[in-house]
Amino acid sequence: VSKVSESFLSYVSPMGIYETLYAFQDAFGKTMGEMGTHPWSQGFPLTTQLPGGPEMPTNVYLDAEDLKYPKAWGLPALREAISSYYNHYYNAGIDCENVMVFSGGRPGLMAMLMFLQPDINIRIASTEYTPYYDMLHLLQRKYSLVDSHVDNHFFPSVLDYVNTGNFDRNLVMLSNPCNPTGVTRSGNELKELVEKASYGSFGLLIDEAYEL
Amino acid sequence: VSKVSESFLSYVSPMGIYETLYAFQDAFGKTMGEMGTHPWSQGFPLTTQLPGGPEMPTNVYLDAEDLKYPKAWGLPALREAISSYYNHYYNAGIDCENVMVFSGGRPGLMAMLMFLQPDINIRIASTEYTPYYDMLHLLQRKYSLVDSHVDNHFFPSVLDYVNTGNFDRNLVMLSNPCNPTGVTRSGNELKELVEKASYGSFGLLIDEAYEL
Repeated sequence: VSKVSESFLSYVSPMGIYETLYAFQDAFGKTMGEMGTHPWSQGFPLTTQLPGGPEMPTNVYLDAEDLKYPKAWGLPALREAISSYYNHYYNAGIDCENVMVFSGGRPGLMAMLMFLQPDINIRIASTEYTPYYDMLHLLQRKYSLVDSHVDNHFFPSVLDYVNTGNFDRNLVMLSNPCNPTGVTRSGNELKELVEKASYGSFGLLIDEAYEL
Repeated sequence: VSKVSESFLSYVSPMGIYETLYAFQDAFGKTMGEMGTHPWSQGFPLTTQLPGGPEMPTNVYLDAEDLKYPKAWGLPALREAISSYYNHYYNAGIDCENVMVFSGGRPGLMAMLMFLQPDINIRIASTEYTPYYDMLHLLQRKYSLVDSHVDNHFFPSVLDYVNTGNFDRNLVMLSNPCNPTGVTRSGNELKELVEKASYGSFGLLIDEAYEL
């Protein structure tokens, strides 16, 4: 921004996630995600075609219309396709007005947290994806930690999440599968979380990078 | 987020920019940017090939490598190309470490404002691009208005911008050309702004959608 002795910008340490990546590389002599490492829970999804899976796109065609600024309502056809998918496979009962598309998971989470009412407390596990804590600090959001450790197998229970202490309204925030623990909630476990943490004084913000 | 009677999200009015667009449509019976309207200053850049200009891209090719998560250091080749361009045409004396690429102007501005030291006051014209005020409010940033009105032809002087009142450190923030007034600073006018507002206790954040 300017050549001053005291910077205009706050120094922010590299995200904790990079410490994990560097520590992995130091310990194993390979970058996480390279052949032979387990890429699942650390942001290295496979980007090649799965056996029997759909073809991967190799080409995006553009015309002058596509190069305009996007409309505030996004791409209705895309939002329709997404809501139809969830209605067809999960009987979700949603329509395109329930769907927003962001340029990545983080912009979506940042938008949700930015527009959250100020009284709401975030319930977040102590072993969650480290950039979440950075976001909460940057946006000056209140949060309380849900204990996650060897003794509970890094798998806090639904009751742990909805144990709210002194806060009237709470938002449970988690990655699923959890990055970096790999802990995954699905089926009845996930259903219970949705039932206990999505109504009344609770909100639920789940960041799912994969369809489970 | 949840089905509660009192929403978890803060209500935010549509951006002022949409009021402008709707008012234009009401007044002229055409959407701003349609054939015959003046698209320059209101976010409707031409996206067709200019006479004698470079060909527009029609195609983006992708392989599995492109579909991976981006690296924290971005695309070094792209950042090199951008810094070389500014060195070649403007003798800017920068390298790729001075270049960051965002998924749009707004994410770039948001990042700058988010990491700004809390003591810094923003100097912003009273006729600036309305989403800037929304950003400043959402990020709880201090700002003071630089008067811009008929009498100064909506063209505050450099001295108006650096008239800082009670604040020790200030960041001058503007769009150039200004959206929506169309006021444009270039040549010596722009040079003076850079000289007066980029050093010592000043920072300068200029949002330029066009090369002038």
